[in-house]
Amino acid sequence: MNKQFKSRSDILRQHIHIMFYGVNTSVGKLFDVILLILTVCSLAVIMLETVESVSMMFHRELLIAEWFFTVIFTVEYILRIYSLNKPLKYIFSFYGIVDLLAILPMYLSFFIIGSNVLSAIRSFRLFRLFRVLRLFSFIEESTRLRIALISSRPKIIVFLYTVVVISFTVGTVMYFVEGPESGFTSIPVSIYWTVITLTTVGYGDIVPHTGVGQFFATMLMITGYGIIAVPTGIVSAEIVKQKRTAGHRWQYKDKTVCHFCHSSGHSDNAVYCFKCGKKLEDSTN
Amino acid sequence: MNKQFKSRSDILRQHIHIMFYGVNTSVGKLFDVILLILTVCSLAVIMLETVESVSMMFHRELLIAEWFFTVIFTVEYILRIYSLNKPLKYIFSFYGIVDLLAILPMYLSFFIIGSNVLSAIRSFRLFRLFRVLRLFSFIEESTRLRIALISSRPKIIVFLYTVVVISFTVGTVMYFVEGPESGFTSIPVSIYWTVITLTTVGYGDIVPHTGVGQFFATMLMITGYGIIAVPTGIVSAEIVKQKRTAGHRWQYKDKTVCHFCHSSGHSDNAVYCFKCGKKLEDSTN
Amino acid sequence: MNKQFKSRSDILRQHIHIMFYGVNTSVGKLFDVILLILTVCSLAVIMLETVESVSMMFHRELLIAEWFFTVIFTVEYILRIYSLNKPLKYIFSFYGIVDLLAILPMYLSFFIIGSNVLSAIRSFRLFRLFRVLRLFSFIEESTRLRIALISSRPKIIVFLYTVVVISFTVGTVMYFVEGPESGFTSIPVSIYWTVITLTTVGYGDIVPHTGVGQFFATMLMITGYGIIAVPTGIVSAEIVKQKRTAGHRWQYKDKTVCHFCHSSGHSDNAVYCFKCGKKLEDSTN
Amino acid sequence: MNKQFKSRSDILRQHIHIMFYGVNTSVGKLFDVILLILTVCSLAVIMLETVESVSMMFHRELLIAEWFFTVIFTVEYILRIYSLNKPLKYIFSFYGIVDLLAILPMYLSFFIIGSNVLSAIRSFRLFRLFRVLRLFSFIEESTRLRIALISSRPKIIVFLYTVVVISFTVGTVMYFVEGPESGFTSIPVSIYWTVITLTTVGYGDIVPHTGVGQFFATMLMITGYGIIAVPTGIVSAEIVKQKRTAGHRWQYKDKTVCHFCHSSGHSDNAVYCFKCGKKLEDSTN
Repeated sequence: MNKQFKSRSDILRQHIHIMFYGVNTSVGKLFDVILLILTVCSLAVIMLETVESVSMMFHRELLIAEWFFTVIFTVEYILRIYSLNKPLKYIFSFYGIVDLLAILPMYLSFFIIGSNVLSAIRSFRLFRLFRVLRLFSFIEESTRLRIALISSRPKIIVFLYTVVVISFTVGTVMYFVEGPESGFTSIPVSIYWTVITLTTVGYGDIVPHTGVGQFFATMLMITGYGIIAVPTGIVSAEIVKQKRTAGHRWQYKDKTVCHFCHSSGHSDNAVYCFKCGKKLEDSTN
Repeated sequence: MNKQFKSRSDILRQHIHIMFYGVNTSVGKLFDVILLILTVCSLAVIMLETVESVSMMFHRELLIAEWFFTVIFTVEYILRIYSLNKPLKYIFSFYGIVDLLAILPMYLSFFIIGSNVLSAIRSFRLFRLFRVLRLFSFIEESTRLRIALISSRPKIIVFLYTVVVISFTVGTVMYFVEGPESGFTSIPVSIYWTVITLTTVGYGDIVPHTGVGQFFATMLMITGYGIIAVPTGIVSAEIVKQKRTAGHRWQYKDKTVCHFCHSSGHSDNAVYCFKCGKKLEDSTN
Repeated sequence: MNKQFKSRSDILRQHIHIMFYGVNTSVGKLFDVILLILTVCSLAVIMLETVESVSMMFHRELLIAEWFFTVIFTVEYILRIYSLNKPLKYIFSFYGIVDLLAILPMYLSFFIIGSNVLSAIRSFRLFRLFRVLRLFSFIEESTRLRIALISSRPKIIVFLYTVVVISFTVGTVMYFVEGPESGFTSIPVSIYWTVITLTTVGYGDIVPHTGVGQFFATMLMITGYGIIAVPTGIVSAEIVKQKRTAGHRWQYKDKTVCHFCHSSGHSDNAVYCFKCGKKLEDSTN
Repeated sequence: MNKQFKSRSDILRQHIHIMFYGVNTSVGKLFDVILLILTVCSLAVIMLETVESVSMMFHRELLIAEWFFTVIFTVEYILRIYSLNKPLKYIFSFYGIVDLLAILPMYLSFFIIGSNVLSAIRSFRLFRLFRVLRLFSFIEESTRLRIALISSRPKIIVFLYTVVVISFTVGTVMYFVEGPESGFTSIPVSIYWTVITLTTVGYGDIVPHTGVGQFFATMLMITGYGIIAVPTGIVSAEIVKQKRTAGHRWQYKDKTVCHFCHSSGHSDNAVYCFKCGKKLEDSTN
C-alpha cells in the first residue's frame, strides 16, 4: 500500500487510533474521560447487583445496564484491535486480557448459569483510572512518587524480608504457646495473626489468652510500632532527597555565570557578580 | 449619608462589627473567647442530652440551658447581620448557614416534635474554634501546616487515588473469595473491609475465614503498612523543606544590607551587592 | 549556727542529701539504682496481687513483701524530708505527694478495709524511672527528643486541635446517622468511636451497621490515614533540623578563619586557606 | 601435618568448607540457595502438618518428607562440624544450636511420643534467610539500614522507656477505673490492654465500658497517635542524614584532586588546596 494514497479505511483507523491513544489531543482526552465514566458506572452496576436489597428491587434495570455496558466495551475492544498495527501485542497485554475478560462473562451467561458473576473481573479495568492521571497535571507527581519508591526498593525489600522472617518465626512460636484452643489452629493461621499484630491492624478475631502469649504479643506490638518507622523513614528520606535535588536543579538551571571571575551560585535576581562586582550578562539571551 | 456625620446607629453598627470581626482588638478577642465558651457549653448540653442516664435526671435543666443558648445565638445571628454592610454574603456563607441551623431546630420544636434533635447541627459551630487560633500565636504555625499540606496536595491526590483503586480492586476480589457467609455480603461492604484493613484500623466486625482470604488479607496488610509510609514521607519532606527555607530566611535576616540600594539577601561570602554592584560593608563591624 | 562548726547532725544530713540527690556521685548513683529496683519489685508485688491465681496461692508472702516495701519507702520519705533545707517544697511537689501516697494506703489498711488497694498509686513512683536515664548517657538523647517535641509544640497543638474538632463534628454526625441500636448510644460514645477510628486503633466494640455510616467511616479512616502523616512529618522535620544544626555546630565549632582574607568554612583538616592560599593558624591555640 | 602435603581428607574438608562458607564463590552461592529452598520446604511441611484438614489426608506423605529433611539436615550438620577447624565454636553458636534442635526432635520421636512437635524449632533456621541477602546486592542496603537503626539506638531506647513507663502507669490506673468486670482482670492484663491501645493495634478483646475508662482510652489513643511520630522521626532523620553524607561523598567523588599532595575533598569554590596551599587545577579541563 502506498503511503501517499491512504485508503478511507486507513484514515478511519488513524482517527480511531487517535481517539484511543491520543492522550495529548482533545479528542483523545475526551474519549479517555468518557471511557472512565463508563467503567465507573459499569462497576457501580456490578456492585449494586451484589447488594441484596437493591438487586431484588432493580433486577431488570441492572441487567439491562450490564448488557448496555457489555456491548459498549465489546465495540471498544473490537475498535482497539482494528485501529492498531500490532493487535496481537494488545490482545496479550494486561489491559487486553482485562478488556476481554470484562465482556466475556456476559456472553458466557447464555451457556453457563452464574458465569455473569465473573463480570466483576471488570473491576480490573479500574487500573485504566491511572491513565486519567495523564489528563491532568498529576502525571509528574505520580512519576516522582514512583521514582522515590523505585529508588528505595532495595531498602524496602530488605525491610519486607525482615517482616516476613519475624512473622514466620513469631507465628510458629505463638502456635506452640497458645495452641488451637485460643484460635491459633495452625501455623499458617498463627502467621496470619502475627501479621495482623505486627502491622497494627488488630482485628481481634484471634487473640492470645495465656499470660505468656499476651506477653509475646505485647513485645511483638512494640516491635511493630518501632518497625513501622523504618519504611516511613526510607520513603521520607527519598522524597526529601528528591526535593533537594529538584530544588537545586531549579535554582541553578538557567543561572548566569560571571564572565569575568567565572563564579556561579548567583541568586535569581542578581545583576552584579557578588565576587568581583562586574555586571552579569543573562546567559539565556 | 455623609461620612462626616455618622448617625448613632452607624456608630453602634461599627462597635458591633468590631466586637464580632475585630480579631486584633481586645474587645474582639474577648468576644471570640466568650462565643467559643458558649459554643462549647451548648455542645456539652446537647451531648449530655443524648446520654440516657443524664437526660433522665436533668431533663428540665438541660432544656432550659438549651433555650438559653438558642436565645443567645439568635441575638448573635441578628447582630451579625445588622453589623455587616453585605449581610447576604454572610447569610449564604458556610458560617451563616451553620449559625442559622444552630438556632432553627429549637424554634421548629414548637411545631414539629423531635426536631430539636437537629440542634446537633450546632456541632458545626465548632469550626469557629479554628478562629480562636488567631487569638494566640498559633496562627502562623497553622498557616505553615496548611501550606505544607497544600503544596503536597498533588502528591496526596495521587496517593489517595492509588488507595481508592486498590480498595476497589481488592474489595471486589475479596467479595468473590470470601462470599456473604464470611460477612462480605456485597462488594461495597467488601470495599469497606478493604479500607479498614489497608488503613490498619481493623475493627474485626468482618474478617476473612477462608485460607485464601486470609492470605490476601495478609498481603493487603503488609501493603498497607508500606503505603502508610508514602503520605508521611510526602508531608515530612514538605515540612523539612519549609524549615530549611525558613532557616535560610532567618540566616540572612541580620546580614549585610547594601548601603546604597538597600537590597538584602546577599549570600554569605558576597563582597559586592548583587543589585547595584557597590561594595558591601559588613554591618557587624 | 556557724558555718565553720558543722554539727554531727549537719554532716549526716549532708551525707543523706548526697545519697538522694547526688546524681553525679557514685553513692548517689548506687542509691538511685537500689531505689529503682525496690520500686520495680514493689510494683511487681502489687501487680501479682491483682492476678487472682497468684494472690490465692501466695497471699501471705505478698502481704509480707508489701509491708517490707512500705517500711523502706517510709524510711526513704522521712530521710528525704530530714535531709532537705526546704522540706515543704518537696512535700508538696509531684514526687513528694506520690511518695506519700505510695506508703499511706498500707497504714490506712489498719483502719479502713480495702484501702491497700490504693497502694497501686505507687505505680506513679515509676516516673522516678526517668531519673535513671541520668545514670547512663541517655540523658542527652532524652533532652534532644524533648527539645524536638517542645519546638514542634505549636504545630502539635494545632494538629491536636484539628483532631479534636474533627472528632466532635464527625462524632455528632455519626450519632445521628447510626443511632443507639448500632452501639452509638450517645454523642460522647460516638466521639469515643471517632477517636478509635481516626487513630486507627479500631477496637471493633462499636461499628457502623448502616451503609451511610460505613461510608462515613471509610472516609474517616482515609482521613485518619492521611492525618497520621502530619505529626510524623512535624517531628521528623524537627529532628532532621536538630541533626543538621548539631552537625554544623560540630563542624564549625572551633573552626579557623583565615587571617588574611577572612574567609571561613574551611574543612576540618584544612591547613591552607582555600581562597587565598595563606597558611591557616589554629584559633584554638 | 605438613602444609605442603595436604592429605586427601584435608582437600575434602576444604571443599566442604567452601561449599558452606564460601559466600563469594559460585559453589557456595549455589549451596546457600539449595539449603534455603530445603529450609523453606521443610518449614512448609511442618506448617501443613498443623493444618488439620491437610494432615488428615497426607499424614503419610508429610511424615516421609519430614524424615527426608531431617536426614539432609543431619548430613549438613555433620559436614559443617567436619569442615571447620574450630567445630566447638560452631556447635555452641546460635546457628549451631538451631541446626541441632532442627534435627533432634525427629530422632527423639522414637523414644518420646509427641516430641516431633518440637521440630517447629526448625523455624529458627529461617534466620539463615538473612544470609541469602548476601547473595544479592541487598547486603549494602541491609547494612545501611542497620547502621541507621544502631545510630538511633539511644533515642529509640529513651522512646521505648517512655512507652514502658506510660504503659505501666496507665495500665495500673485503668485496672482501678475499669475493674475485672470489663475484662481488666489484673494489672498485667491491664498493661497488655494499654500496649494494644497505645500501639494502635486495638484487638477489642478488652475494651473499657465505663465513661471514665473510655475517656482515658481516648486520651491514650491520641497520645499513642502522637508518640508514633517519634520513632518515625528518629529513623527518618537518621536515613536523611545518611543519604546526605552519602550524597556529599558522591558529590566530591570526581572533584579536583590536588596534583601535588593528592588530597581530595576540596569544596566547590576552592582555588587553593587546603592541605598544601598549592593552586588547584580544574580536573574537568
